[in-house]
Amino acid sequence: MKRFLTIAFALILSAAALSAQEQASYYPRQTEWLEMAYQMRPVLHETVVCPVGAVRAVQDPAAYQGWRYEPCEGWEGMENRSFREIKEITLDFGRHYTGYFTFRIKSLRDCMDGPIRLRLLFGEMPSEMNTPLDPWPEGCLSRGWMQEEILTIINTDQDITLPRRMSFRYLKIELLGTSQSYEWAIDHISFRAVSSAKDVKTALQPGAPQIIQDINRVSIETLRECMQTFFEDGPKRDHRLWIGDLYLQSLANAYSFQNWDLVRRCLYIFAALADPTDGRLHGNVFEDPMLHPQYQNYMMTYALLYNSTLLQYIRDTGDLETARDLWPVARRQVEDALFSVGDDYIYDMARKPSWCFIDWRDGLDATACVQGAVIFGLEETYAIAEALGCTAEVKEWPKIAAKMKRAAYRRYFDKGSGMFLSNGQASVQSQMWMVMAGVPSAKEGAAALRNALSSENALKPGTPYATHYLVEAMLRCGMNDEAHDYLVDYWGGMVRKGADTFWEAYDPGNDNISPYGFTPVNSACHAWSCTPVYFIHKYPEIFQK
Amino acid sequence: MKRFLTIAFALILSAAALSAQEQASYYPRQTEWLEMAYQMRPVLHETVVCPVGAVRAVQDPAAYQGWRYEPCEGWEGMENRSFREIKEITLDFGRHYTGYFTFRIKSLRDCMDGPIRLRLLFGEMPSEMNTPLDPWPEGCLSRGWMQEEILTIINTDQDITLPRRMSFRYLKIELLGTSQSYEWAIDHISFRAVSSAKDVKTALQPGAPQIIQDINRVSIETLRECMQTFFEDGPKRDHRLWIGDLYLQSLANAYSFQNWDLVRRCLYIFAALADPTDGRLHGNVFEDPMLHPQYQNYMMTYALLYNSTLLQYIRDTGDLETARDLWPVARRQVEDALFSVGDDYIYDMARKPSWCFIDWRDGLDATACVQGAVIFGLEETYAIAEALGCTAEVKEWPKIAAKMKRAAYRRYFDKGSGMFLSNGQASVQSQMWMVMAGVPSAKEGAAALRNALSSENALKPGTPYATHYLVEAMLRCGMNDEAHDYLVDYWGGMVRKGADTFWEAYDPGNDNISPYGFTPVNSACHAWSCTPVYFIHKYPEIFQK
Repeated sequence: MKRFLTIAFALILSAAALSAQEQASYYPRQTEWLEMAYQMRPVLHETVVCPVGAVRAVQDPAAYQGWRYEPCEGWEGMENRSFREIKEITLDFGRHYTGYFTFRIKSLRDCMDGPIRLRLLFGEMPSEMNTPLDPWPEGCLSRGWMQEEILTIINTDQDITLPRRMSFRYLKIELLGTSQSYEWAIDHISFRAVSSAKDVKTALQPGAPQIIQDINRVSIETLRECMQTFFEDGPKRDHRLWIGDLYLQSLANAYSFQNWDLVRRCLYIFAALADPTDGRLHGNVFEDPMLHPQYQNYMMTYALLYNSTLLQYIRDTGDLETARDLWPVARRQVEDALFSVGDDYIYDMARKPSWCFIDWRDGLDATACVQGAVIFGLEETYAIAEALGCTAEVKEWPKIAAKMKRAAYRRYFDKGSGMFLSNGQASVQSQMWMVMAGVPSAKEGAAALRNALSSENALKPGTPYATHYLVEAMLRCGMNDEAHDYLVDYWGGMVRKGADTFWEAYDPGNDNISPYGFTPVNSACHAWSCTPVYFIHKYPEIFQK
Repeated sequence: MKRFLTIAFALILSAAALSAQEQASYYPRQTEWLEMAYQMRPVLHETVVCPVGAVRAVQDPAAYQGWRYEPCEGWEGMENRSFREIKEITLDFGRHYTGYFTFRIKSLRDCMDGPIRLRLLFGEMPSEMNTPLDPWPEGCLSRGWMQEEILTIINTDQDITLPRRMSFRYLKIELLGTSQSYEWAIDHISFRAVSSAKDVKTALQPGAPQIIQDINRVSIETLRECMQTFFEDGPKRDHRLWIGDLYLQSLANAYSFQNWDLVRRCLYIFAALADPTDGRLHGNVFEDPMLHPQYQNYMMTYALLYNSTLLQYIRDTGDLETARDLWPVARRQVEDALFSVGDDYIYDMARKPSWCFIDWRDGLDATACVQGAVIFGLEETYAIAEALGCTAEVKEWPKIAAKMKRAAYRRYFDKGSGMFLSNGQASVQSQMWMVMAGVPSAKEGAAALRNALSSENALKPGTPYATHYLVEAMLRCGMNDEAHDYLVDYWGGMVRKGADTFWEAYDPGNDNISPYGFTPVNSACHAWSCTPVYFIHKYPEIFQK
């Protein structure tokens, strides 16, 4: 029943965005797709876990972001010790979990004669747990993302389960208020961890190096935590399905959990929530309180990665029925991108407003990257048409792709520096997207990548997201050893710095990088960082050697 | 089902307090009484109310406790104004309510892409709303009593109802965190007020003075708010059924709502939860999570007031069946008190530990008061025996009472000062309890009361609770005009200072009186302050003239 109500509500919202003349949806089956998306909602697997011990925070300049935890006494027997005396404790659950926290106030002596007030702070990272949160930086993301709950507890000896889903490894419990005239303990601490991921279907070759084993494990844990009712970008922050993250998750999923149903569900969700007036995909969607997009949030680069996800899905599953169903959506995204390609075969970002996300790196000029992303998307989508045998519909595309490649080379390649420059700016990002698009030859591309990576002035990737494409581009240019080393250095760097799951933002040279100007709000378990498992298993001869 | 489980649980708790040799309850029917108490649980009447407007806090030395509110713009149209711009608002609900708060976050533009964090502070008094709560005073009652909730809101356009019951007139809503990229409003604000009180069955005489009308109204509102599933002492703080409060509420109830079922329920609750080893009543009990006493909290003075409540109940209802049922409990409380009466017919507080509460007034020597309270209780309980025709069981009591009166007069009356002195200390409290006990003649009692009231050194009542017995004592001495004036001055003083309901602690000369050293934690709607309605209607010729 709820499903039908929410569908009706979503349609009302969609309808509100339509002008009176255009009440028909761009895709006639969009309502049906939404219904299918609801029907495909997975049941989450649940595991009940407990803390492994108490920890003490140590401020340490050598630790990542300046803080680390070390084990201490306090967990054993906590359920029989007066919390009025403990006052504060930090518990370590041993690894990253996402789900629901339960505890109980147990009477030790006399009975409760006044409410207990507690502060619970759940966090992924030691520094997140120990950085003062107030005053909250002006203009930052919402303070509400911090997993801090102030509880007033009226009754003892009853299970208390927080309704809010938490994503964390560490939990700090602080006493804010109690009556002085009775004694009580915190008891029955447990956590119901949830994920739609289940068994890992792949295994490393015997004798794979330890660092590769570690990177693989953390990569899988990252994906597991992000796999909920859909592929979330981060279980702590955003909780959203973004196309760009979905694509990378679908690659990692193909080499780990192989949960194709969840990929298929996400493909239908985006299609169902596309703008009914013009068929454009929204860059991200939410599941609660009902499925809905972030309205008007168009991301051309991400829309094309939807098509790459569909292509990957076909290749992994052979499910051409789904591909045929969603083909109009894929074709529409390319058509929309081509609208902004001028007579000079250069993509003009000014022509139609859209967020062309490439990386979080201050000052990055994305012009060349976007040109590359459009060419890449065009070719990926043409591959879907080939699989479906409908290339006749889009027979101009290969010619357009070829012309865009030549135009890109002419416009952006700078012989002097041996790099593609984007409005004069050198960046690793520009090189890698030109490579992804097949603009340079493998040899030229490798040289351009090496030049940018070794240039002091060239901007470097700011996120694991961009780093994925860099490694992919290296592999496309035959830079196998460098791809291996880069992956081991970059993701291995996170492992060495204590990562249980891979982080949203990571710069080996700057522990305090944050897309939001405040590291505690960073997500430390982020979908777009989970791709090492894909590289490691797709190219075992390179990464497992 | 829940009822039987909780009974079982209560019995387990009671049983734990019993030694192995004494498993039988002091009162054979105690289990049945508990079952009866659960069966008598009233249905609460509900009223949905809304704010009457927004208010602005003004710091004003002339205002009670230094703060007052004045009306301001902000409530009209609030549901369509971005709360990101409002940031903070205080709403006035126009009078005191107890119940459950509901609101909703309404999307105004774009969709929610991050949790909202709000601070909601519910309060009864302007100063409570505007006094900094942190750092909380060391050793004070629990910080958790303050009705402050920090909320993290994940979804928009859904009703949010706080599970915690609030008792308040004012609500401050403060924005602690939001995403910057969407606009939302606070909408659907409503409050489901609950009480087991319904219609007032009494009316003032035409032409009753305005101040009497006001005192009567505030008195009734106080009682209404405290009438929940039992007679609570304060709906904001304690939420408990105390015998001392119950007695005064039963007097006020007799002249207002006349809800005898609730009085009867409370009588059975206390009886059901008496110490099963020796039959002593506990001074207070809790309803949640199941009925249970504050264990080991014996209050001899309150235990005797249980008997006065039963006597008042018989007189109001003629229900001798209940009285017969509970007579063993009443008799046992007197016997327990008499255990501490020595051969000199003086009550010895050191003989058996018990909290002999008389008043919150620092330094009060309660010795003489307690002697008076025991004599009063003895005579009240004897009157129950008379009503039941079972005086033969307690035929010694009148003689004991007479001897105790003479002993009290000899021990405590000081001819020089014309007052009863308690271990040399002069207090109004000692005089009034000697009068309640009938120790002095009316003439002597009136003189003693006047002497104490006019003496600079004599301690004065610190609470409306003690003030009730002062007015009662005045009336017993024929000081009708003084009783009238005292009531009008004292409770009228609260009205003039803005009381919507009568306060737990009030001293006309000290606005900052607090039994807990911190006024914000005071209860501003307190059961033991509700008795003016009793005086006004019982003695219309004195108070309504």
